[in-house]
Amino acid sequence: MQLTPTVISAQPLEKAIREYLERNDHVGLEHFLSTQRPPDIADVVDRLPEEGRDEVFSILPAPVKAAVLSEVGVETKRSLLQALARQQKRELITHLPMDDLMRLLIAVPEQRNELLEETNLQVAQQVRRLLDFPKESAGRLMTEKYVQTRPVMTAGEALDHMRKVHGETETFTDIYVTDDDGHLEGVASLRDVVLAQPNQQLREFMTKDIVSVSPMEDQEIAARLIAHYNFLALPVVENGRILGIITVDDIIDVLIAEGTEDQLRFGAVEPGVLNQPYFTTPIWRVVRSRVGWLVLLFVAETATGTVLRHFEDELAKVVALSFFIPLLIGTGGNTGAQTVSTIIRGLALKEIRVRDTVRVIIREFWSGLLLGVTLGVIAFGRAELWGSGRQLSLVVALAILAICTWSNTIGSLIPLVAQRFKIDPALVSAPLITTLVDATGLAIYLLIAKALLTALR
Amino acid sequence: MQLTPTVISAQPLEKAIREYLERNDHVGLEHFLSTQRPPDIADVVDRLPEEGRDEVFSILPAPVKAAVLSEVGVETKRSLLQALARQQKRELITHLPMDDLMRLLIAVPEQRNELLEETNLQVAQQVRRLLDFPKESAGRLMTEKYVQTRPVMTAGEALDHMRKVHGETETFTDIYVTDDDGHLEGVASLRDVVLAQPNQQLREFMTKDIVSVSPMEDQEIAARLIAHYNFLALPVVENGRILGIITVDDIIDVLIAEGTEDQLRFGAVEPGVLNQPYFTTPIWRVVRSRVGWLVLLFVAETATGTVLRHFEDELAKVVALSFFIPLLIGTGGNTGAQTVSTIIRGLALKEIRVRDTVRVIIREFWSGLLLGVTLGVIAFGRAELWGSGRQLSLVVALAILAICTWSNTIGSLIPLVAQRFKIDPALVSAPLITTLVDATGLAIYLLIAKALLTALR
Repeated sequence: MQLTPTVISAQPLEKAIREYLERNDHVGLEHFLSTQRPPDIADVVDRLPEEGRDEVFSILPAPVKAAVLSEVGVETKRSLLQALARQQKRELITHLPMDDLMRLLIAVPEQRNELLEETNLQVAQQVRRLLDFPKESAGRLMTEKYVQTRPVMTAGEALDHMRKVHGETETFTDIYVTDDDGHLEGVASLRDVVLAQPNQQLREFMTKDIVSVSPMEDQEIAARLIAHYNFLALPVVENGRILGIITVDDIIDVLIAEGTEDQLRFGAVEPGVLNQPYFTTPIWRVVRSRVGWLVLLFVAETATGTVLRHFEDELAKVVALSFFIPLLIGTGGNTGAQTVSTIIRGLALKEIRVRDTVRVIIREFWSGLLLGVTLGVIAFGRAELWGSGRQLSLVVALAILAICTWSNTIGSLIPLVAQRFKIDPALVSAPLITTLVDATGLAIYLLIAKALLTALR
Repeated sequence: MQLTPTVISAQPLEKAIREYLERNDHVGLEHFLSTQRPPDIADVVDRLPEEGRDEVFSILPAPVKAAVLSEVGVETKRSLLQALARQQKRELITHLPMDDLMRLLIAVPEQRNELLEETNLQVAQQVRRLLDFPKESAGRLMTEKYVQTRPVMTAGEALDHMRKVHGETETFTDIYVTDDDGHLEGVASLRDVVLAQPNQQLREFMTKDIVSVSPMEDQEIAARLIAHYNFLALPVVENGRILGIITVDDIIDVLIAEGTEDQLRFGAVEPGVLNQPYFTTPIWRVVRSRVGWLVLLFVAETATGTVLRHFEDELAKVVALSFFIPLLIGTGGNTGAQTVSTIIRGLALKEIRVRDTVRVIIREFWSGLLLGVTLGVIAFGRAELWGSGRQLSLVVALAILAICTWSNTIGSLIPLVAQRFKIDPALVSAPLITTLVDATGLAIYLLIAKALLTALR
């Protein structure tokens, strides 16, 4: 019996598996793998070279194969499937619950039809219907393997029913009560059923005030509902009829995936549809997912050159002006990045709504001003220490005050405008705001310089 | 019966509650609130002005008060508690499960002793022990309200036992089997118990291969274990003894909180210990959580001034050199921000480990080079269009190639070094990397210019 905490790290497991493979010890490997959990095996399979990967996979019994296949990255899924014979694919597919099967079909669209041919007609039809729901919708997260009963069933009968159908259900935490047409009338938790008198009818104690989600809704809404109400499962309902349920484990995957995607977006990397581990993504694909934003930002950033050329005479007269350029626009960019991340978070947590725009702008104007005053004082001191002359020091201090206020205000406006026009505010990245305030910050700086420096007159 | 999907938005609910408050309709408000769910009420309470907030809270029955108090922001918690009389506090506390009570005590440390006096001695002792576990540790997430049984108990007896203790348990999804000393020997899911023959003993079908977590472990490890193995609950074990369990709903809160905290950190905002909604945070506290990073980055950024002063003669001779400064360092910063977010994500998902450092650096060197070549070509074209002269265009193109490669490589190194020295890599923000590559990028640019421009000789 193992009671030490399992630390999630595929390292020792990977080492052991690699050793079995090197020794060509198939019997030993098979026994070793039978003592391991599928999610851990999947982590290792994802990191093995192709031959080792296929070898490990071929040893696994079909139900474990199905579980491992559901957990590995997209490229690994593709290569594992390619190595399988038709008969093996068929066996594998019968062990996949419908939501996992669907996710597999989404991951390897080029094998979709071939794989669907291996399922029975009913499953194929159902899967095709699910695939019609939009990408990242609640409908695509559903499983059909839930317990469905009628309101007149007693608690005792419900337990008997559950014992009968347990092979076909993925989750047991809630029991869904429907009428003859599949209209959802109530939900009873397994806990309620166990606690009820065996002869009590479900309709007497089921919850009738049901929170549900439409299959067309974004998966994030489903995740928020489950998180907000502390649910273990959420029914998917269309026109009053229950189509399936979404379970909390799938929601956790959604939350993790969306969280890391937002992180990438904030760094101006397009996450893309692929969800592939770092080392197995080909470099050209990495470059492709980044070059678009870089070129776009580069072009936007060329506006700084236009601004500077406009002030060519001033820069030629007072070379010291250019010493402060990176400092001023850099600080403006940093301030803007802070604001953007604050606002995006507020929007994500629903603490801020579009109708609060004016309140947000006023708030961020003031905090920008406070930050600007603080940094302006420091900038003045620094410029004096460099011996820049009292006038130039004053210009730098005023410029930083103005730039901080400006970038704080504009940094709060942009995600709100995005939200307003139904663009995901998480698309507003740190590089985007930095780039946007660079040219405007330069213009502010050089206009202040032109107005205040006697040397420029 | 309500079957339409509940959209998470406190708006209509807030409007209704405000109207009851304006009409001074206490009876109506009380009835209306009794039809609403605590998490939804909490959202509105968090947004109401102080008087309205206290009024709504005072109307709620004690169990709902407890649930609402657990869900509101820290400042709201504090102000609601201050408005309560001693007797009301005592009543409230009896309705809080231990994990919620502990989170309340952590949120309002100044009222900790006063609140603990209102609990019975046993609870107070237990809570004090839990508070001894480090901040953000698994121990602090535990609830003690789980079902504990002995291995010789039969499935039928276990169900009877659960019916008896259900008032004291928070979760029913798993049953924990221990020996007389509290050593954890196995876990059986409620599903297993329901499916077993009533006279089967738990030890015959319980899982003996238990995944558990130590109370000192970081809460993120607990979250990862639950996410990785698709658990609904995780036992917390010390020296083989079960201390409590962590449930999936608390893990979801951890994942959401850590996700949004990482987002703030990536924008160089210190999330702080407070988890307070946007509009209720005083502006001075917002400024305080941001000014530290801004000043630090400002000081680091002054290095750019030092670099530029070093090349004062060159800049005076060829003013056009300065036109490209923001463009070059801006692009370097963008590239670096992309890399950092990619690497932080890889580390968070455990796709990258510290021992992969060399592989990562090589990979990012190459993708930086590829991106640099692409942008270098575009930059050359842009500089030519500005009529910068063939030599300067070449300098700019080469500089961007070198800067992209450099910032991509250094951007991957920094989070890995942080991880290596046990500093959270999520502390490496976009502004930090931008600032770091600004001065070095300038030096690269001006050194190339000095080497290649005949006008500078």
